Amino acid sequence: MTKTIKAFGTEAADAKLEQLDIERRDLKENDVQIDILYCGVCHSDIHAARNDWGNAKYPLVPGHEIVGKVTAVGDGVSKFSKGDLVGVGCMVDSCQTCSACDEDLEQFCEKGMTATYNSKDKDLGKTTYGGYSTEIVVTENFVLRIPENLETKAVAPLLCAGITTFSPLNHWNVKKGDKVGVIGLGGLGHMGIKFAHVMGAETVMITTSPGKAEDAKRLGADSVLISKDEDAMKEHTGSFDFLLNTVPVKHDINPYLQLLKRDATMCMVGAIEPLEPMNGGNIIMGRKRVAGSLIGGIKETQEMLHFCGENNITCDVEMIKMQEINDAFDRVTDNDVKYRFVIDMESLKN
Amino acid sequence: MTKTIKAFGTEAADAKLEQLDIERRDLKENDVQIDILYCGVCHSDIHAARNDWGNAKYPLVPGHEIVGKVTAVGDGVSKFSKGDLVGVGCMVDSCQTCSACDEDLEQFCEKGMTATYNSKDKDLGKTTYGGYSTEIVVTENFVLRIPENLETKAVAPLLCAGITTFSPLNHWNVKKGDKVGVIGLGGLGHMGIKFAHVMGAETVMITTSPGKAEDAKRLGADSVLISKDEDAMKEHTGSFDFLLNTVPVKHDINPYLQLLKRDATMCMVGAIEPLEPMNGGNIIMGRKRVAGSLIGGIKETQEMLHFCGENNITCDVEMIKMQEINDAFDRVTDNDVKYRFVIDMESLKN
Repeated sequence: MTKTIKAFGTEAADAKLEQLDIERRDLKENDVQIDILYCGVCHSDIHAARNDWGNAKYPLVPGHEIVGKVTAVGDGVSKFSKGDLVGVGCMVDSCQTCSACDEDLEQFCEKGMTATYNSKDKDLGKTTYGGYSTEIVVTENFVLRIPENLETKAVAPLLCAGITTFSPLNHWNVKKGDKVGVIGLGGLGHMGIKFAHVMGAETVMITTSPGKAEDAKRLGADSVLISKDEDAMKEHTGSFDFLLNTVPVKHDINPYLQLLKRDATMCMVGAIEPLEPMNGGNIIMGRKRVAGSLIGGIKETQEMLHFCGENNITCDVEMIKMQEINDAFDRVTDNDVKYRFVIDMESLKN
Repeated sequence: MTKTIKAFGTEAADAKLEQLDIERRDLKENDVQIDILYCGVCHSDIHAARNDWGNAKYPLVPGHEIVGKVTAVGDGVSKFSKGDLVGVGCMVDSCQTCSACDEDLEQFCEKGMTATYNSKDKDLGKTTYGGYSTEIVVTENFVLRIPENLETKAVAPLLCAGITTFSPLNHWNVKKGDKVGVIGLGGLGHMGIKFAHVMGAETVMITTSPGKAEDAKRLGADSVLISKDEDAMKEHTGSFDFLLNTVPVKHDINPYLQLLKRDATMCMVGAIEPLEPMNGGNIIMGRKRVAGSLIGGIKETQEMLHFCGENNITCDVEMIKMQEINDAFDRVTDNDVKYRFVIDMESLKN
């Protein structure tokens, strides 16, 4: 049994998003049924809808930064009750038995995690639909508890932009006394600054755009390094304990490698495409490392949400109605948002 | 005061190496004077002589894989005596006070280590001359003790090729039970196989050349993976705990990144030039790391020599006379040596 609900999605790579009726999965024993209040707009939503990665299954309903209220739970659910404020991020299932899942790293599930949308529902065999809809049903192990003290609408992007930046800062043990650079000031970068700052690091915003300096400082950056300023870059040579590279497109990482201390790491979280050629000598000299990181596991995502609750961290958001999504996609593509659009799902329900 | 000694070197980037008279540094309080028995021929010697890196100071006397006998020591020398069998590697001095030197990583000295040749002698202000000569004088902290049980001439390349491969395997804690791939079978790769094998790892030689399989197994590889064989590469996907990449030229590292387990590292020790573009997604998926490593510190080099003594590890060498160096350079460039030329310095003394 399924229920027909309202959603916004697309039927083809070159089509605009429009209102669709989709079938919501029915509640099973370990499932949580969620009435969606807000959903963030991630750049991935655009890549997926437009089939930039060549794996789109239509109709495609994006959205993996979901916050809502529990409306029902299956008989086997122990962690959540009706009325709870909850979130759903980029994953809705995984095998739960492989070594990655055992280590709470479901994002690297060896059998492949089930993505919140455009993925194969493990039980039903149907395609998953994301958060640009009125409701979602998710197995309880992939449902997150949202701190009640935070502004709810500004929490939604924590489920992707938040964990994507928190996880590497946490994994590489960023702490008081460290000098951390956050490269790129967009949806990811603005969260990277907030986290690194609250973790106690000397936080440097590294950007090509002098115009972003003021805002970077408002977000928590101690200083701003303009990467086009060769003298300034030289001054910071060999001084960073960690770099979080959030640039979402092909770029030259060599100048940033020069900024790292011996044995230090630059972690990439944005660009999945081929980068400009890296000089081997830039990592051989100083035994440096270039690493990658992908969102975070469910346990770490819950830790991140607690951390945000304790430290009053949310995203800087611009609210839109569901019907404004096509304009929002264009503005995200133009990098014209500070720093994340969030859809007020009330607009779809009426 | 200085002493004039015989050496082989070059006066210009496009000149052949020929016999030169050079001035050897005089013995100071903490110096060790060494009669050179053998000197290995490293590919770097060729790059330096031909000014491939644009920093050559002529006359240039290469050679940083030196084994010899102590003939005299300064009054302040405590660790060595006349008659000791000793070695000198890529460095002859460093500041000894920075954080890198404090951590026994003189190769990353923040004030710049003094290279064995083509570097500025800290005290004399003159250019250092390398091991293609009859004698060398080096401060005792940069002199290494050579195990007496090993075949002396086959020890020389341990001072560069040996430590370059030992150090990353040691630093990344390669051990019994690990699956380690050594990419490229040349002077560095053949030592990488020997070390990984003796450290107890399942050692896989990864090469483009099926013709190298037999020799790789003789050197200690458990198996050989031909990187051009797509099916074989697919079988090994996500299975390696560590990869040691010894390829000395520009190449595509993306296929190798697919071989790494989650959270595993590929360490580059060969190519200092720009590599083919790396796909960000190849490190983001699986939180993988690409690192570099440069020779090793003096303490670790001594540990490596002890390890070789205990485990009877030397290099596979082809002996030449000093006068044959220009042909040897051509053969190294053509990758026609198994696996390292070593100069018998007796040929220069007569």
